[in-house]
Amino acid sequence: VVDAGDDAAVLRLTPGHDLVATTDAFVENVHFRREWLDPTGIGARLAAANLSDLAAMAATPRWALLSMGIRGDHPAASLIDVQRGLAAALEPHGAVITGGNLTRVEGGEWFDLTLLGEAAPGEAWTRGGARPGDWIAITGHPGRAGAGCRVAMALGDAARAAPFASLIDAWLRPTPRIDLARALAGRGCVTGAIDVSDGFGADLGRLCAASRVGARVEDALWPRDPALAAGAVALRVEADALRFGPSDDYELLLAVNPARRAEAEALAGERGVPLCFVGRFTESPARVWIDGNGAETPLPDGGWDHFGAR
Amino acid sequence: VVDAGDDAAVLRLTPGHDLVATTDAFVENVHFRREWLDPTGIGARLAAANLSDLAAMAATPRWALLSMGIRGDHPAASLIDVQRGLAAALEPHGAVITGGNLTRVEGGEWFDLTLLGEAAPGEAWTRGGARPGDWIAITGHPGRAGAGCRVAMALGDAARAAPFASLIDAWLRPTPRIDLARALAGRGCVTGAIDVSDGFGADLGRLCAASRVGARVEDALWPRDPALAAGAVALRVEADALRFGPSDDYELLLAVNPARRAEAEALAGERGVPLCFVGRFTESPARVWIDGNGAETPLPDGGWDHFGAR
Repeated sequence: VVDAGDDAAVLRLTPGHDLVATTDAFVENVHFRREWLDPTGIGARLAAANLSDLAAMAATPRWALLSMGIRGDHPAASLIDVQRGLAAALEPHGAVITGGNLTRVEGGEWFDLTLLGEAAPGEAWTRGGARPGDWIAITGHPGRAGAGCRVAMALGDAARAAPFASLIDAWLRPTPRIDLARALAGRGCVTGAIDVSDGFGADLGRLCAASRVGARVEDALWPRDPALAAGAVALRVEADALRFGPSDDYELLLAVNPARRAEAEALAGERGVPLCFVGRFTESPARVWIDGNGAETPLPDGGWDHFGAR
Repeated sequence: VVDAGDDAAVLRLTPGHDLVATTDAFVENVHFRREWLDPTGIGARLAAANLSDLAAMAATPRWALLSMGIRGDHPAASLIDVQRGLAAALEPHGAVITGGNLTRVEGGEWFDLTLLGEAAPGEAWTRGGARPGDWIAITGHPGRAGAGCRVAMALGDAARAAPFASLIDAWLRPTPRIDLARALAGRGCVTGAIDVSDGFGADLGRLCAASRVGARVEDALWPRDPALAAGAVALRVEADALRFGPSDDYELLLAVNPARRAEAEALAGERGVPLCFVGRFTESPARVWIDGNGAETPLPDGGWDHFGAR
């Protein structure tokens, strides 16, 4: 109704819909390094992180407000590239930049995005709906983003070589799962959801805590991932540390109604989105990992220190 | 519908209302200095800046998302105080914190707020509606905030003395004009609006440009301000430099329908809000200042450099 350039934006939701709002920041030398990400890539990565939060709510993205903290010597062209990358990454999902703020900083630069979307009443997913017996489903290959970051920091330019390409891609160019979430929304397939922004172990823990359930995750069901295995060898860590540990994958971790698993699989398949059913939610609150030999251990919950101590 | 603690907040607007969204950041050593503002004050000041943007749109504040960039050694208690100050400043205007983000930074800390409000369709004010002949009205005492900042930087602790109290207050503790804006909304009193966040000269220029009008502002109509005069003496600058120059006053600059001036005055009077009619918008695009002797000069548009060169 009123776009960028006034004191605030005036926006009209689809009648009868709820507003869904999230905010996420991207900080120089904390979340990104300029030698690994150009300005367009920064914008796209910022979009992905926020889009992923809306995907985890099954919301439709609509509008973005971009707030930037920029050093005085920053060339204007590069700022325009950040906005261009952001706009291009939002556009396929139906969202546009509608306002923002620019302020000067002296240290590390930062980009803070607020993404606004909408959902029909009652259709938004939460973390609190998983029930014992529901399937634990995960899109993509959890752990790759964290492995990509660690490989890049450890190997430098050598991490640009072929065996690590899918890890580096997962780290720098994650794919938000908006399309799948929108396809699954309102069908009763999904009972609870979270996006994996801290790591499979940590985010499964959050979903379980909010839903008051436990989890049994089985190695035999887990997607094989040669790229992650190569990363583990290069980093001299166990593959489990990468699989369950800190990783901002922006994949969806879903609780799926067993009666509708086939429907969820078909919708993912039609969209070319890998969707793996790696275990079940349980009434017992424990989170259990069943390894390749059938042995049961507590599922790592994935703080850096935990793995650092191994 | 779904509060902080999930991937995103789910919020329900008043049926049939539009969403009004703004974002504003507050950066350590750029916008605030810890020796002048405690954590509660930082939260309140951040609220005021964003509330003022919604006041300029005549919107009703509803929800806030707080994104923080914080150094690793920052005590948690002080962060809670920032949020407490923010919540306390939002509450009288009907808004609550409903989500946010926390990230680590290495340099200056920052707080970025997105404030969401609502307005009935067509009721939101814009910068583009002022018409020739409308009154130029201003709340409060423009220039005081900028003068307070300059006095604090120039005099240090001496600026805490009595003659400067109202300047320091305007700088650190501005009063957003939500109540007056809501009272004036939907009555046809106000044809255009902007909040003074950069200074009267600069923001009047923006309102004029968006509305394609000019302005004649008269010294004889301007509110007398002994505090600003005292600041000008202490800083050895002309009072006009403070009056028109850079100043984040968060006052409202309104275009008022002449047929409804008395109604606007009465509504401001009932609320104890100073509202001064300082001139008229004109068809000619020039912005003119008529001094105490009736002499006409171009109205300063208020960049720092402009006044630095005097």
